[in-house]
Amino acid sequence: MIVALAGGVGGAKLADGLAYRLGHDLSIIVNTGDDFEHLGLHISPDLDTVMYTLAGIANSATGWGVADESWSFLKQVVHLGGPGWFRLGDRDLATHVLRTERLRRGERLTSITDDFCRQLGIAAQILPMSDEPIRTIVETAEGPLPFQEYFVARRCAVPVWGFRFEGSAQAQMTSEVRERLGGADLEAIIICPSNPYISVDPILRVPDLRQLIEARPVPVVAVSPIIGNAAVKGPAAKMMRELGFEVSSRSVAAHYRDLVDGIVIDVTDAALKPAIEALGMKVCVVPTLMRSADDRRALGDVCIEFANVIAGTGPPA
Amino acid sequence: MIVALAGGVGGAKLADGLAYRLGHDLSIIVNTGDDFEHLGLHISPDLDTVMYTLAGIANSATGWGVADESWSFLKQVVHLGGPGWFRLGDRDLATHVLRTERLRRGERLTSITDDFCRQLGIAAQILPMSDEPIRTIVETAEGPLPFQEYFVARRCAVPVWGFRFEGSAQAQMTSEVRERLGGADLEAIIICPSNPYISVDPILRVPDLRQLIEARPVPVVAVSPIIGNAAVKGPAAKMMRELGFEVSSRSVAAHYRDLVDGIVIDVTDAALKPAIEALGMKVCVVPTLMRSADDRRALGDVCIEFANVIAGTGPPA
Repeated sequence: MIVALAGGVGGAKLADGLAYRLGHDLSIIVNTGDDFEHLGLHISPDLDTVMYTLAGIANSATGWGVADESWSFLKQVVHLGGPGWFRLGDRDLATHVLRTERLRRGERLTSITDDFCRQLGIAAQILPMSDEPIRTIVETAEGPLPFQEYFVARRCAVPVWGFRFEGSAQAQMTSEVRERLGGADLEAIIICPSNPYISVDPILRVPDLRQLIEARPVPVVAVSPIIGNAAVKGPAAKMMRELGFEVSSRSVAAHYRDLVDGIVIDVTDAALKPAIEALGMKVCVVPTLMRSADDRRALGDVCIEFANVIAGTGPPA
Repeated sequence: MIVALAGGVGGAKLADGLAYRLGHDLSIIVNTGDDFEHLGLHISPDLDTVMYTLAGIANSATGWGVADESWSFLKQVVHLGGPGWFRLGDRDLATHVLRTERLRRGERLTSITDDFCRQLGIAAQILPMSDEPIRTIVETAEGPLPFQEYFVARRCAVPVWGFRFEGSAQAQMTSEVRERLGGADLEAIIICPSNPYISVDPILRVPDLRQLIEARPVPVVAVSPIIGNAAVKGPAAKMMRELGFEVSSRSVAAHYRDLVDGIVIDVTDAALKPAIEALGMKVCVVPTLMRSADDRRALGDVCIEFANVIAGTGPPA
């Protein structure tokens, strides 16, 4: 049994690669700090990206939403004077409408997600990091911005000073997350190549979650979302720069230093290996860019084997 | 200034014919007794049919919804395990989502409808009969059924005993409806060829509304939705039979006898004229079937002229 922590696109790709090998033996704890309400609908962007990716219906062209999407709804919304800035596709909308209705009836986000996954034929377990609202607030020179406003409306153009995770102090870990992370059959924890600040940190800020990971004797392996001095996707590199860090996998390693036993970095960054090892973790150097399904599976296999090596149950790397 | 009372398809067609002549000088009070919540969305079937018809975007093939509709949302809802019995199209959905969000924010159905109409370029004023919930309950041999369950899920197959309009005693007339019906410039009231029991009666049951109409000295003209012994569309004829009435325009006239000054019936039913006049109202015999836009306009003109004749301001019929 392996637990992965994931945000959006990059995280979803590795989770997909892991799921190919592990099936039911994989649980993915997903960031919900980006969740927000739009047109009265509860939207969970990362949860949906992971779900659509594992269901094989993700829109690979956009990096969000569903493949073969149509836009009749959005066009009519604008025609009726409504907002068009957040692009809701017709198929995608089914998830939001059904989820919103069930949340309003008092159902848990965890159970709703589980039902959707079963309907979509997903074997792995996709778990929201919490059933309670935790909302990422981006601290900027222009003041605090709700995440979607920063990300979609402002296109990450405003320089970032830091992040707050509103509601995290009051939130509770779900019994499902606690069972998975605390389970006797847990073999490894894999932190997917998601943005450390806005995708992984919100998960780690769920009360007791980081402590629970730290207390487990199983290997914790992270995959760096940085290749060279750029992020594969999204604002991670830009944020690093604005926060005053060197843009490199070494900064990712430093960010996770007390948490992980090993980090997977790209072959491009092989020269960083000694410096990262000096932080007290093992380093695995492989190609990490996932262009194809084969790439996802290969990287997933690397992570599992790397964890085995760290645990002393596999061949040396 | 003319006020029309309307339900769904037949009512919307005549309203459209009247709007062609009257533009801003027409207000249409529309039945909201069929409104219901589905997937957490507030749906106003009659309001939408009237709005879409006057905007020229009604789906003439189905009799409900928007033309050039797509169904990606509904297919995905079913794929995710949701209900498919109520057919929500992608374009149509924009109305429901925007309206629901605004209602939840505390806005009035009247203002929301007014905004939509402006966006859709509708000159006439479309007014929900009330901003408060009034729900048509169909009393049947199998017990009371909410209207949409009777109409859509059961396809009107259950015999009808009667109707209740839940919430009507507590509802209030809106200031807009009161101003239109009470206005000094009001010249006539036209009851469109909608189902008398489930489209027009709910409007007449809004507290004070029928009394306000009766107190006005302006002509009140109804158009019969029955031609021969059949309804042009919908369950009106079936209901008449089940309620023990003769299926004919005479029953429609009898239903409205204390309210209307005149009724428009189809040429097919010319022989009923003396019997209906005996009920104490004027009768106008013309073709009432509206197949084309020209038919709608012609019937609209007939209604306006008939009202003028009754008021003594027009030439004799």
